[in-house]
Amino acid sequence: MILVPLPDMTPLAEGIGRNLQARVRPLDLHHFPDGESLVTLPEGLDGEEVAVVATLRDPDRLALPLRFAAATARELGAAGVGLIAPYLGYMRQDGRFSAGQAVSAPLFARFLGETFDWLVTVDPHLHRIVRLKDVFPMPAVRVVAAPLIAAWIAREVPDAILLGPDSESQQWVAEVARMAGRPYEVLRKTRTGDRQVVVSVPENADLGRGTPVILDDIASSGRTMARAIERVLAAGGRRPVSILIHAVFAAEAYDDILAAGAARVVTTDTIPHPSNGISVAEAVAEGVSTAGLQKSRGKR
Amino acid sequence: MILVPLPDMTPLAEGIGRNLQARVRPLDLHHFPDGESLVTLPEGLDGEEVAVVATLRDPDRLALPLRFAAATARELGAAGVGLIAPYLGYMRQDGRFSAGQAVSAPLFARFLGETFDWLVTVDPHLHRIVRLKDVFPMPAVRVVAAPLIAAWIAREVPDAILLGPDSESQQWVAEVARMAGRPYEVLRKTRTGDRQVVVSVPENADLGRGTPVILDDIASSGRTMARAIERVLAAGGRRPVSILIHAVFAAEAYDDILAAGAARVVTTDTIPHPSNGISVAEAVAEGVSTAGLQKSRGKR
Repeated sequence: MILVPLPDMTPLAEGIGRNLQARVRPLDLHHFPDGESLVTLPEGLDGEEVAVVATLRDPDRLALPLRFAAATARELGAAGVGLIAPYLGYMRQDGRFSAGQAVSAPLFARFLGETFDWLVTVDPHLHRIVRLKDVFPMPAVRVVAAPLIAAWIAREVPDAILLGPDSESQQWVAEVARMAGRPYEVLRKTRTGDRQVVVSVPENADLGRGTPVILDDIASSGRTMARAIERVLAAGGRRPVSILIHAVFAAEAYDDILAAGAARVVTTDTIPHPSNGISVAEAVAEGVSTAGLQKSRGKR
Repeated sequence: MILVPLPDMTPLAEGIGRNLQARVRPLDLHHFPDGESLVTLPEGLDGEEVAVVATLRDPDRLALPLRFAAATARELGAAGVGLIAPYLGYMRQDGRFSAGQAVSAPLFARFLGETFDWLVTVDPHLHRIVRLKDVFPMPAVRVVAAPLIAAWIAREVPDAILLGPDSESQQWVAEVARMAGRPYEVLRKTRTGDRQVVVSVPENADLGRGTPVILDDIASSGRTMARAIERVLAAGGRRPVSILIHAVFAAEAYDDILAAGAARVVTTDTIPHPSNGISVAEAVAEGVSTAGLQKSRGKR
């Protein structure tokens, strides 16, 4: 297997490659000022299973370059071409919430299925879509970050009290708490508009027992996390640690979370960001390896 | 037929619609800060032939929204879904100019072919690809702007001396000149680098006979057009009129062309721009109509 990362994903690809004993050869992606792009693939793909490594933050801008990269790898003799997309994107638009809307999640899955022979991703933001195979036509592997986050918490914040920002996060936060051997609470979130979120701390929550660690998968606007931090502080808790799987920070989200009073913001390296502190490289390599994707498949 | 333009293409779509007696109902395209987008289609598509109207300046950013729009139109019952892309994009990467490069033109054509049942475009920038049908798997109609440009010149610059900036433009400029009933010359262009262009005026050219009108299809960097204007002025010509089919102006290209000494810069409305002065609406409508695309096809 040859890992072919987009330039910004080379550090993560190197980590994955070390765990898979796979070579890493970045592709070149040039953007022209007229909005077109030119993909140039590395040498030596003939007969190889190729894994393009690209994170799907900003998926619109990457869709054609990824399509061109996969097709060109096949033209150059690749036996099969998969996608390692540590952050997947587009899974939130999983229904037609008003008349005429595109249901983007399955359409995006179909586009990726036409493009790649397999997919490996980390904790996709799934809600109405229960399993990746409900929308992806090709083998799609879901790598979970919970054990990595639990290990990080056990090591870095031994007195952690885990907090989920809303009821949706309950199951996941409970699992991380169990693995880290720490207690947890779930906050109550009410969304009163596109940009308005009210978060409240349960009355019986004893935040004085340790360091609050608030967990979520993404922080697009950052409002949920920022409100949770403020409520924890208002309820008498210490400055909390904020952990997010994917560093999807729109505009000022990261600064807003810090400004709300986080002692520290930590993310995994599924999206390159200065807050990255937990690497998914080994877990992704294990996902690739367990699913047997290293063997060439050559579907087309 | 219902014309469904992207919001910025509504004025041109209205013009096309008047000539086709077709309704115009813009789609809504919302861009989220995380780089995803949400397409919302208008009502009333059931059983209709739908023509999405989108110009492919900035094609990477539009590829997924167009894919989502076409698929959603079919989900909503459209009998067929075509694309009117007055400017096509991606046709310049028509070869593998160095090892590993994607040959984007046919790959982009295949992507559009998977997405739409037919295509109508205006004067695509074809070079090694001779005809649209060499790369497009579906019916693809090429509308020519030459008669519109010739008519504009005959009306607005009756003493025009047409000038092509390089030998590639010879055939096209000769055709416009013939239609406008005016003389023409072709400048000699030497490209000495990615951003360096040397243009020279033929020694026997008599620019004193009228108003120089320099024609080209696009002006991406604007250097070819700017150098041509400067050479015409240096050769003693009057301030020239600059006519371009597609307003593909990267960065400062438009200002550079004006600064070089153009008396006026005029483009067609294939790409919305303040310089638009020649409408392709009627010609596009005729292309749709002549190819019989108004009838529903319902390929899928």
